[in-house]
Amino acid sequence: MINIAIMGYGVVGSGVAEVCRMNADAIEKKAGQGINIKKILDLRDFPDDPFGDRVTHRAEDIFEDPDIAIVVETIGGTGIALELSRRALEAGKHVVTSNKELVAAHGPELMALAQAKSISYMYEASVGGGIPIVRPLHKCLSANVIQLVAGILNGTTNYILTRMDAAGIRFEQALSEAQEHGYAEQNPTADLDGLDACRKLAILGSITLGEYIDSRQVHTEGITSIMPPDLLYAQHLQMKLKLIGRFRLLLDQQADMIVAPMLISRSHPIAVADDVNNAILVEGNALGEALFYGRGAGKLPTASAVVADVIECAMHLGRLPHLITWAVSDRTIVRPHDDCPVQALVRLRDSLPAERVRELFGPYGAEPVQAQDLHEHAWLVGRDAVLSEGQLAARLRLLDADVIGRIRLFV
Amino acid sequence: MINIAIMGYGVVGSGVAEVCRMNADAIEKKAGQGINIKKILDLRDFPDDPFGDRVTHRAEDIFEDPDIAIVVETIGGTGIALELSRRALEAGKHVVTSNKELVAAHGPELMALAQAKSISYMYEASVGGGIPIVRPLHKCLSANVIQLVAGILNGTTNYILTRMDAAGIRFEQALSEAQEHGYAEQNPTADLDGLDACRKLAILGSITLGEYIDSRQVHTEGITSIMPPDLLYAQHLQMKLKLIGRFRLLLDQQADMIVAPMLISRSHPIAVADDVNNAILVEGNALGEALFYGRGAGKLPTASAVVADVIECAMHLGRLPHLITWAVSDRTIVRPHDDCPVQALVRLRDSLPAERVRELFGPYGAEPVQAQDLHEHAWLVGRDAVLSEGQLAARLRLLDADVIGRIRLFV
Repeated sequence: MINIAIMGYGVVGSGVAEVCRMNADAIEKKAGQGINIKKILDLRDFPDDPFGDRVTHRAEDIFEDPDIAIVVETIGGTGIALELSRRALEAGKHVVTSNKELVAAHGPELMALAQAKSISYMYEASVGGGIPIVRPLHKCLSANVIQLVAGILNGTTNYILTRMDAAGIRFEQALSEAQEHGYAEQNPTADLDGLDACRKLAILGSITLGEYIDSRQVHTEGITSIMPPDLLYAQHLQMKLKLIGRFRLLLDQQADMIVAPMLISRSHPIAVADDVNNAILVEGNALGEALFYGRGAGKLPTASAVVADVIECAMHLGRLPHLITWAVSDRTIVRPHDDCPVQALVRLRDSLPAERVRELFGPYGAEPVQAQDLHEHAWLVGRDAVLSEGQLAARLRLLDADVIGRIRLFV
Repeated sequence: MINIAIMGYGVVGSGVAEVCRMNADAIEKKAGQGINIKKILDLRDFPDDPFGDRVTHRAEDIFEDPDIAIVVETIGGTGIALELSRRALEAGKHVVTSNKELVAAHGPELMALAQAKSISYMYEASVGGGIPIVRPLHKCLSANVIQLVAGILNGTTNYILTRMDAAGIRFEQALSEAQEHGYAEQNPTADLDGLDACRKLAILGSITLGEYIDSRQVHTEGITSIMPPDLLYAQHLQMKLKLIGRFRLLLDQQADMIVAPMLISRSHPIAVADDVNNAILVEGNALGEALFYGRGAGKLPTASAVVADVIECAMHLGRLPHLITWAVSDRTIVRPHDDCPVQALVRLRDSLPAERVRELFGPYGAEPVQAQDLHEHAWLVGRDAVLSEGQLAARLRLLDADVIGRIRLFV
């Protein structure tokens, strides 16, 4: 029997307890021993919970207990979670986390701490919820030079876009629906603004390169300004509009990284992911393409990924630390956004003459697309020659008041 | 620098060498040391190959070389491959294989041999080519009770069915095309008869249960008798016709296992896999569904999975053997085929009165489907109540000469 502690008994934390209870037999068979939740750290009490008697409000009860080998951190955020993760590692406890914000912001420090102590710091659940991606990307694809990691990394926004597309409703209404179904938090800013997807993308990019990528360097746009006509263009072009995070390795070993709404062909494997599902495509120079698809969030899926890490940790306790570490280098890893290539659908007011569009975008390719609104025309630009984000932005600034919007194409 | 040997320098074996050469830097970074191919065992010589000088015809040159720590087995089949794998393990060499036939037939023996020697026997490449599935299923999903593992496990047959569907051509012509493209071997029997998919399914089932499943107990049908009208029904029903392997855990811990052509909804995630791609869906009681998709075969994809195993082995050499082992039990794991539930599209000659069909299948559900051929009618049966394979077969025997064919539905 191995003793663990859970820090943070919210959605994922209580899910971890639930998975441990409901799959106790399968887990014991796999781990070679049972997993006992000895302590749960939370500010609240849970008198009606089956594990309510394990709750403590003092972190020391965990860190000073020599029987507890593994600590699960499901607090979230970078405040108290950072402090408690540090203290757990310093106390020699293996740490398993689902906290993408913490891993993206302080991963290198926590990994170094674990490495110095020869213990594990594991974070499979930080990306893709229950979908295995961290370990496969690191271990199973290790013989490849990974050229692309791209996909739908946030379930909340994917649900909203799916509903806007299927029901023709506006963003605000789709958001309300998502909240009613429990797919969006009461304060969904980190999801809607693309921050959550950006952190996950930075984690995947860091694993791919073995070097830490600061998520704040990734150009990030959310979905709050998506309008129903944008979806009409997607349908007209046999595409879907998805919030996509994309890491692309460039020839100079820099990475082109972005999180933004993009138009993607309906037949593309990434586009199979609707509703709250995630899909992550990985392209390696030997492998070709592989796709990982499934429930990217939710209580039990995410908890099952946490518990899988706990099991692996328990199986090898004291023998081999599990660390997928990132070097911290001072080279510029993320290429400046303005220098990255882009293809986009540009929506312009009717008042703007087509000649002006051809003059500005012609050399890069400018194909007219049938307008989905009476008062505009629309163009696909950048498909013939490389157009940079900076060049696109400069041209749109020139057109200024005549620009209704632009949506990138996934390429 | 770690020395390895390759046994069998065919498509996958030479791919392993190619991946080691083309990704040498990335592999050295990951493994912490370079990988050197010291010896290649084959009956042939390869004077023009960059590794031609490593070729030997004597297995002893590998087994007796104390510098060689890891041996790759890419011979295929269960003859000499079995003998050489045994000898390699007995000589204390870690073995990495892509040989699904050997793993399916003799996995337990070879795993036990490795376990006794505290060395690794790794077989990620035996299923799904380059798609990570063996390790994720074992490690990442270990907190789940896995209820379903199903998908498209063979690229050759999937290519043929995709071409028959898209081009409306007959089986023989699609097979010729597959052979021209190098997607089908000159003797493609193991692919076409479903044997290859069956072995992979048995491996996935064995990993899922942690118990050895003999692939010979899995009911297996191939695609050689698929006719163009079958594809017309698929289209009419908004479905695709795919060769699907399916493992389903039943309440009594027996497994319902089958490999057969099945009709599957076009919008089902598995159906995203066309051409030579594979797609494997895993359903766990905490996770929900996760899908693994990509190139399921081919020289470099498969080789990259082999090399990933070599890297993991090299990283932990002498510290921790990598074994995903199966217990051998004497319980009946695979439920007898006749007792498994089935839903099917039944194609019957026009001469048979509809009353007779309703009489035989009515209690189980019998919905008429618009016939795709002038001289027949067609029914979906088994959708209202549980119809067993045995019951279906008995009823079709009663109708005998009036039966044109039947295709199962994926459920």
